[in-house]
Amino acid sequence: MNKIISLDEISGALVCEAGCILETLDNYVKEQNLIMPLDLGAKGSCHIGGNVSTNAGGLRLLRYGNLHGSLMGVEAVKADGTVVDCIRTLKKDNTGYHLKHLFIGSEGTLGIVTKVAVHCPVLPKAVTLGFFGVKDFDSVLKLYKSAKASLGEILSAFEMADNDSISSTVQNLKLPNPIADFPFYVLVETHGSDETHDAEKLSRFLEREMSSGLIIDGTVTSEPAKMQDTDKDVEGHVITWFTAAVDMDGNKQGHPCWDTIWNLRESIAGAGLLDGYVYKYDVSIPAARYYDLVPVLRQRMAGKAVKVYGYGHVGDGNIHINVTVPEYSKEATDMLEPFIFEEVSKLKGSISAEHGVGFRKPHFIHYSKDEGAISLMRELKQLMDPNGILNPYKVLPDP
Amino acid sequence: MNKIISLDEISGALVCEAGCILETLDNYVKEQNLIMPLDLGAKGSCHIGGNVSTNAGGLRLLRYGNLHGSLMGVEAVKADGTVVDCIRTLKKDNTGYHLKHLFIGSEGTLGIVTKVAVHCPVLPKAVTLGFFGVKDFDSVLKLYKSAKASLGEILSAFEMADNDSISSTVQNLKLPNPIADFPFYVLVETHGSDETHDAEKLSRFLEREMSSGLIIDGTVTSEPAKMQDTDKDVEGHVITWFTAAVDMDGNKQGHPCWDTIWNLRESIAGAGLLDGYVYKYDVSIPAARYYDLVPVLRQRMAGKAVKVYGYGHVGDGNIHINVTVPEYSKEATDMLEPFIFEEVSKLKGSISAEHGVGFRKPHFIHYSKDEGAISLMRELKQLMDPNGILNPYKVLPDP
Ligand SMILES: Cc1cc2nc3c(=O)[nH]c(=O)nc-3n(C[C@H](O)[C@H](O)[C@H](O)COP(=O)(O)OP(=O)(O)OC[C@H]3O[C@@H](n4cnc5c(N)ncnc54)[C@H](O)[C@@H]3O)c2cc1C
Ligand SMILES: Cc1cc2nc3c(=O)[nH]c(=O)nc-3n(C[C@H](O)[C@H](O)[C@H](O)COP(=O)(O)OP(=O)(O)OC[C@H]3O[C@@H](n4cnc5c(N)ncnc54)[C@H](O)[C@@H]3O)c2cc1C
Repeated sequence: MNKIISLDEISGALVCEAGCILETLDNYVKEQNLIMPLDLGAKGSCHIGGNVSTNAGGLRLLRYGNLHGSLMGVEAVKADGTVVDCIRTLKKDNTGYHLKHLFIGSEGTLGIVTKVAVHCPVLPKAVTLGFFGVKDFDSVLKLYKSAKASLGEILSAFEMADNDSISSTVQNLKLPNPIADFPFYVLVETHGSDETHDAEKLSRFLEREMSSGLIIDGTVTSEPAKMQDTDKDVEGHVITWFTAAVDMDGNKQGHPCWDTIWNLRESIAGAGLLDGYVYKYDVSIPAARYYDLVPVLRQRMAGKAVKVYGYGHVGDGNIHINVTVPEYSKEATDMLEPFIFEEVSKLKGSISAEHGVGFRKPHFIHYSKDEGAISLMRELKQLMDPNGILNPYKVLPDP
Repeated sequence: MNKIISLDEISGALVCEAGCILETLDNYVKEQNLIMPLDLGAKGSCHIGGNVSTNAGGLRLLRYGNLHGSLMGVEAVKADGTVVDCIRTLKKDNTGYHLKHLFIGSEGTLGIVTKVAVHCPVLPKAVTLGFFGVKDFDSVLKLYKSAKASLGEILSAFEMADNDSISSTVQNLKLPNPIADFPFYVLVETHGSDETHDAEKLSRFLEREMSSGLIIDGTVTSEPAKMQDTDKDVEGHVITWFTAAVDMDGNKQGHPCWDTIWNLRESIAGAGLLDGYVYKYDVSIPAARYYDLVPVLRQRMAGKAVKVYGYGHVGDGNIHINVTVPEYSKEATDMLEPFIFEEVSKLKGSISAEHGVGFRKPHFIHYSKDEGAISLMRELKQLMDPNGILNPYKVLPDP
C-alpha cells in the first residue's frame, strides 16, 4: 500500500497507493521540481490516504488550494467490497458524477481509499518570509487585503497570532521573539519563481504598510528556498534554514531568523500545555468576524482561565482558539461547550475547520450543518455502508 | 433567482442566487478588485448555477483552479423538495460529508442549485500574452514544462493549436495570423500583480526558449490589464484591447495584437463550419499522449475528411479535435464513433472534458468510467431522485 505508481513530470500528476507517507511523496516529486500541494506538521507520519480522508488543509492552502481542487482521482473500496476506480490523471473530466469527492473528508466512513492521483504544482524557486507587529485585529484584516492585492499570486501563507499566543510561547518555551511586543503578529510567506521579484514585492508591501501605519515593526528574510537543507522542529514541521536575515534597517542579522519565525508560530499549539490543561478549538469563521470569539471567551472565562488566545490561518478563515486552565474541570468544560459551538454557529462558521468530526464531535455537527444536509449525509452513509461497518460511531451522530 | 446576496471584500467570498449571469457577477466583483475564478466564451449568457451544474472549466482553469476548489458553498433543492443548505463562506470546513460536490457537474440530475458561494481571487493588475511558432508537438510539451517552471504562479493559459487549426481559421474567416506559418502554435497568457515583473518573466522565457530552439518565432504583448476597456468578439469572448504590441525585434507594432491573437484562438471552434459539417470532440488525455489521436484520425479519415485538427488547453489535458467533412454522413459518423471513444479510453482519457454528458453521450460513459463507478452513480441517482424527475435521460444510460 505504499507504492508510488507514476509521476507525469509534464502535467505534475502523481499516482500512488494510499499508504504512502506525505513526506516521502514530497521528497520524490521534488526530484522533478514539483511539490506536493499540501504540507502539514504531521508530514513525516501521515499517509496520503489519511490526508484525503480527513481533507487535510495544511499550511499552504492559500497558495495551492484544497484537496477537492488538487485531487485528480481516487480508487476506493466500498463497504461491500466493490472497487470504485476513479483513478485518472486529468484536470478536466465531465463524464458522470464526480464521485471522488465522496471520499474526501468523509473520514473513512464511506469507503477505504486505496490509491490516489494528485496534481503537484511546480516547486517554488524562492521563498520569502515576513513577521510583523500590528496594533489591532482590524489592521490584521486590512493587511490581509493589502497582501492579497500586492503579493497576489505568490502569497503562500498569511497567519496571525495575538499577543497572548506569542507571549505565552516565548515565556513557556523560552523561544526568542525576533521583534518587540505587539498586540497582534502577522506572518506572511511567499512562494514564487523569482527571488528578486518576490523580495521586491514583499519589501514594497512592507514599506507601504509601514508608512500607512498598518505595520508597526517587522522583519523580512529572503533567500532562494534551499529545499534540500531542511530540518525539523519538535512537531515535525519542516524548517528551511536561512543563513541571513535582514532587519528593518536593512542590517543582516546573525541568526537564522526564518527558523525563529516559523518555529515560534508552530510552537504555539504546544506551548499552552505548560499552563496546565488546554481546551483547543479548531474553528473557521468568515473573515470580518474572525477574531470576535476570543474577547467573548476571555470575558466569559475571566478568573477561570489562565489564558485565552487565538491564532491561525487568516487566509483560510481558520482560527485556533486555545483556552488554558490550571487543570481540567467539568465546570470549565461546561462553560465552554456547547457555548463556543453555538457562537460559531451564529457566525455561520464551522466547528471543525481542519480536524474533522471523528468520535468526539458527531453530536455537535448540527451547529455547522442544517437538517437537510445532515439527513442527506445519513442517506449517503446508509447507501454506501448499510451495515455500518466502516468507522462506526464516526462523523454522524446516532439518529 | 438573480440576486447578489453578499460579497466579502476581504476573503473574496461571493454569495448569490443561481440565476446570476457570469458576466454580471464578474463586473460586480471587479469593483472590489476581484475576479470570478472562471471565464468562458458563454460568459454573457450562462448562469452561475449552470456553470456549477456543468462544472464549467473555461479559459483560466490553469491559474484559478476548478469549481470543486473554488466553490465554497451551495444551496440545492432535492427531487423531493428538501432544501440542502450548504451555503458557507469558509475555505475550511471539515464537518461531515462534503455534499456540495454532488451538485458540481451532475447536470441538474441530482438536484437544482439555487444559491452558490464562490471564492473570487484578486483581479490581476497585469496581463501579458505570447504567441509562438513551434516545430513539433514534442516541443509544445517541452515548452509547457518550461513555462510552468519559469512563469509558475502567473501562468494563466497555455493553449496550443496545430497548423490546420490556425490555417483553416485564417483562410475560412480571413483573420490575420500575427506570425508566420508553423507546424504548431502556442499561446501563453499570464495574470500577475506586477507588470514589470511579469513582462520580464515572459521575455526571459521567450529568450531562453528561442535560443534552445523550442520557440522558432513569436510575438509578445504586455500592458497592465485595462479590465474596464473591454469589448467582445463574435463568440462573446471578452477582449482586452492593448494599444501596443512588441514584435520579436522589440519594435512596437501598430495593431492591437492582443485582440488578433485571442481572436484567432477563439475562432477556431467556429471556422470549420465553412468546410461543410464538423464533428467536434472535446476530450482530455494525459499530457504525454495529448496529440496522439489527431494523426491517427487523419489516417483513418484520409479521403473522407476535409481536415482533421486539434487545439486546446494543454495545461488541462483538454484537446478539442475537429473533423470537418463536406457534409454529414452516417458513414463518416460510423468511422468516427465509437472508434474515437475507444481510443480515448485506451489512453485513460475522458470522452467529455468540459461539455458534459447531456442527452447525447450517456451510452458512451463507460468509455471513461468503470463499472464500479457507474453503478455507484446509479445508486446515487436512485437515492436522490427515485422517481427520475430531474433531467431524465441525462448523464446515465438506461440500465
Ligand atoms: C502535528 C500535526 C499537525 C497537523 N497539522 C494540520 C494542519 O495544519 N492542517 C490540517 O488540515 N490537518 C493537520 N493535522 C491533521 C492531519 O491532517 C491528519 O492527522 C492527517 O491528514 C491524517 O492522516 P493519517 O495518515 O495520520 O490518518 P489517520 O490518523 O490514520 O486517520 C485519520 C482518519 O482517516 C481515516 N483513514 C485513514 N486512512 C484512510 C484510508 N486510506 N481510507 C479511508 N479512511 C482512512 C481513519 O480511519 C481516520 O478516521 C495535523 C496533525 C498533526 C499530528
Ligand atoms: C460560446 C460557448 C463557449 C463555451 N466555452 C466553454 C469553456 O471554455 N469551458 C467549459 O467548460 N465550458 C464551456 N462552454 C460550456 C458552458 O460551460 C456551459 O454551457 C455553461 O456553463 C452552462 O451554463 P448555462 O447557464 O448556459 O446552463 P444551461 O445550458 O441552461 O444548462 C446546462 C445544464 O445544466 C443544468 N442546469 C442549469 N442550471 C441549473 C441549476 N441551477 N441547477 C441544476 N442544474 C442546472 C441544465 O439542466 C443542463 O443540463 C461554452 C459554451 C458556450 C455556448
